[in-house]
Amino acid sequence: MASLRIREAKEGDCADILRLVRELAEYEKLSDQVTISEEALRADGFGENPFYHCLVAEILPAPGELQGPCVVGYGLYYFVYSTWKGRSIYLEDIYVTPEYRGQGIGSKIITKVAEVALDKGCSQFRLAVLDWNKRAMDLYKALGAQDLTEAEGWHSFRFEGEAMREMAGR
Amino acid sequence: MASLRIREAKEGDCADILRLVRELAEYEKLSDQVTISEEALRADGFGENPFYHCLVAEILPAPGELQGPCVVGYGLYYFVYSTWKGRSIYLEDIYVTPEYRGQGIGSKIITKVAEVALDKGCSQFRLAVLDWNKRAMDLYKALGAQDLTEAEGWHSFRFEGEAMREMAGR
Repeated sequence: MASLRIREAKEGDCADILRLVRELAEYEKLSDQVTISEEALRADGFGENPFYHCLVAEILPAPGELQGPCVVGYGLYYFVYSTWKGRSIYLEDIYVTPEYRGQGIGSKIITKVAEVALDKGCSQFRLAVLDWNKRAMDLYKALGAQDLTEAEGWHSFRFEGEAMREMAGR
Repeated sequence: MASLRIREAKEGDCADILRLVRELAEYEKLSDQVTISEEALRADGFGENPFYHCLVAEILPAPGELQGPCVVGYGLYYFVYSTWKGRSIYLEDIYVTPEYRGQGIGSKIITKVAEVALDKGCSQFRLAVLDWNKRAMDLYKALGAQDLTEAEGWHSFRFEGEAMREMAGR
């Protein structure tokens, strides 16, 4: 029988990660916003001071099967800083490809992120989810997360390049 | 006349930063969540691989005035990563003490963050704001930010220590 492994991503996984980043953006109906390249993912995640870390969920073939391992999900995170609680993790993306959902792979990725956070002395980890993605919201709540937008009223704001250049007079 | 300077924080500013972190949390009505210490701010922001960067807004006394410079605001940020756009900045906190509001100090801090973002090749910067803080929301929108919670439905979720330990079985 095929089995699942959650492992740290290697540079050679970037093509698979980009494929899943695009699938996730399509699922979120925001794929027009994806401009990143495989080269950027390689340079930014696997240099001396990586900008991010990534876990991949991989299906390992049963002994005797001909196909190689297949990446079916990922969790991309980095370290952030709370002025209330100190070192923290932000889980930027978590995604499992549709045909592998409902098998607990998402929970396994989140559990691994929690383990990394505890190992690194982080007191919390945060993530963002779209309000219509009830399946994801229910999962995170079931695992013990709090919806801070609902509970405290936090809204996310973003300044893009044009606004930044306007402010900086460039 | 006294004048304003926005500059990078030094380790010796941590007592001032902590004072303002606490003021901001009180203003946000969430001060029970602040557990950080001055020592943690020193260690985490001013070591070899700092977890955060900080700008302070300082009032410089007029020539002949006896008091020293006085820190009246801060902006604390760090580098994050968007799988859509690459390197980005997250402005964790921005705060100006009440008696110095309405003088454009907040806008100057945000402009400086935009300059840092552009200098470091970041395509965007993000921040979070409480929905009842209309003054701040109006400022960010006037400076060109988009409210992603309103426009796209993003909710912020947080896992705290207990939930993480439960998942990790610790």
